[in-house]
Amino acid sequence: MALKKLGSQTVKFHNPPSIISTYTIVGPKEGEGPLKDYFDFILEDDMWGQASFEKAEAKIQEETIKAAINNGNLTNQDIDFILSGDLLNQIVSSTYTARQLSIPYYGLYGACSTMTESLSLGAMIIDGGFADKVVCATSSHFSSAERQFRFPLEYGSQRNFSSQWTVTGAGATILSSTGDGPYITYATTGKIVDKGIKDASNMGAAMAPAAVDTLITHFKDTGFSPSDYDLIISGDLGKIGKSIVLDLLKKEGYDLSNNFTDCGVEIFDGEKQDTHAGGSGCACAAVVFNGYIYKEMKKGNLKRVLLMATGALHSTIINQQGESIPGIAHAITIDINKD
Amino acid sequence: MALKKLGSQTVKFHNPPSIISTYTIVGPKEGEGPLKDYFDFILEDDMWGQASFEKAEAKIQEETIKAAINNGNLTNQDIDFILSGDLLNQIVSSTYTARQLSIPYYGLYGACSTMTESLSLGAMIIDGGFADKVVCATSSHFSSAERQFRFPLEYGSQRNFSSQWTVTGAGATILSSTGDGPYITYATTGKIVDKGIKDASNMGAAMAPAAVDTLITHFKDTGFSPSDYDLIISGDLGKIGKSIVLDLLKKEGYDLSNNFTDCGVEIFDGEKQDTHAGGSGCACAAVVFNGYIYKEMKKGNLKRVLLMATGALHSTIINQQGESIPGIAHAITIDINKD
Repeated sequence: MALKKLGSQTVKFHNPPSIISTYTIVGPKEGEGPLKDYFDFILEDDMWGQASFEKAEAKIQEETIKAAINNGNLTNQDIDFILSGDLLNQIVSSTYTARQLSIPYYGLYGACSTMTESLSLGAMIIDGGFADKVVCATSSHFSSAERQFRFPLEYGSQRNFSSQWTVTGAGATILSSTGDGPYITYATTGKIVDKGIKDASNMGAAMAPAAVDTLITHFKDTGFSPSDYDLIISGDLGKIGKSIVLDLLKKEGYDLSNNFTDCGVEIFDGEKQDTHAGGSGCACAAVVFNGYIYKEMKKGNLKRVLLMATGALHSTIINQQGESIPGIAHAITIDINKD
Repeated sequence: MALKKLGSQTVKFHNPPSIISTYTIVGPKEGEGPLKDYFDFILEDDMWGQASFEKAEAKIQEETIKAAINNGNLTNQDIDFILSGDLLNQIVSSTYTARQLSIPYYGLYGACSTMTESLSLGAMIIDGGFADKVVCATSSHFSSAERQFRFPLEYGSQRNFSSQWTVTGAGATILSSTGDGPYITYATTGKIVDKGIKDASNMGAAMAPAAVDTLITHFKDTGFSPSDYDLIISGDLGKIGKSIVLDLLKKEGYDLSNNFTDCGVEIFDGEKQDTHAGGSGCACAAVVFNGYIYKEMKKGNLKRVLLMATGALHSTIINQQGESIPGIAHAITIDINKD
């Protein structure tokens, strides 16, 4: 069998897996943003009756996956694998969710790149013939992330203008070996790129070089140009990261000014919602993709999209030891047609 | 194409990936244990000139992967993907290693099940036609794990008799679409099993029920009996977990008394080395597999092995919130023959 590989980092699916169901749950703040009509369920209280931020996040992810399975007219027994991860230490939101579902489970850690990490691996598992149905999912929660990566909320710390607002929510995608699309047709797996940014309140700048690396690699590997896509969208670079990407790509000869944006730029109204550089967190790309992009593709308004979730792969302890923040970005092509 | 699946949780590889190179590095204590002659490099100082435990662990993983690539007469450019993970928050040993290598990277979190999580996914990626060569790797370090999961070493806390000793070291496997074996022929992916154990000093008991679940599922899915294997070996159940597994399997009608052991039982001399219930950590299964098992298979002394790394998927924060410890176990069949 010929290798399903193009260039150095891209694979092309021979039997592109179909997205047959998605679901999104978001917190109240996300439910007041510009994309509110695309989310399936908006929480009134981001604690959702739980005793801790972490348990609230796990409940959000669990209910999201259950609803995605239900939306696809499936049961847990129909699902071959769950591929999921999140930001919390030891990805406990994903683990405690998978514990409730009794489905074979692979835990992933890609920070905010998790949505496309899980979709890339899920698509390979299905196209490789190892599964009929795979759940790909991730979650984040403003309060669990803030206290883990930055300051306890009780400090009431002032937020930098370069800081981003972690999205509270979860998104789940069900991939299937059969279905009417949209389909995952290509996946470009990122390498780690680290340009020395050490400021955990400037994630956009830390992740942008990885995003640029993956985008250029994707275009070179596939032969596509930016205009081959209706939309090219990164995960959570925010305003600062987005402008860095546009600048760096222009220098390399790629003009993305007409069809590139970032999930973190779109999910909040920065002026009204006081979210500074924009949204972030694993759920940022997850809810924008499984809500807005998926639904617009089903309507035919978007035909071909490049989704590239972006991750900052540091920990507080290694950051405090003087290390910089490594970035990564994984891109997938989603197409309403198979070829 | 027919689904490469047997029963509920097992996949059978049609073109079983070959292991073409391995490498192991261990700390001084592991280098004094019963398996010392099987490890490729034994550190004199487990800090290895680094300023922190975490940076020492990352250096161990990085040098292990570089040596495995070199041992296979390969360069980084020959490797399609790295699949790796570790115990540290945000798996920073793996991330900071991958940063140095410039190879497309998928981060995994399976706690001490990481070695077989990475080998299972790596084998699917190769058999699915998406890669020629994949590096599967993991690491752990006694001192980075102890201070993260239990107590600062400076406390000098007394260790429970049920506690295990986290292995300092790393193991890496290079899988290839071609080669002379041994081959990965089957993979049984675990579900999470949680029987309510909350004691982070009794990981063997927390993980044993997941190990039992995966073993029984493997036998049912494949039709194999325990005697079809020369060796069935779990990752880091230790003495307590091992005896629970033997008891529970006996009740279910499976007699493993002749050919079952645990990497955590084998790696230390519990009497002389004061390691209580045995070894643990991601590196426990990784160095025993990539050292002892691989080398004995190359010599022909072991022909067919079931390796089942086992993971405890809690975090300190969720444990302190009253949650119990979920366990998982992923099993792979390694065979010197393809069929």
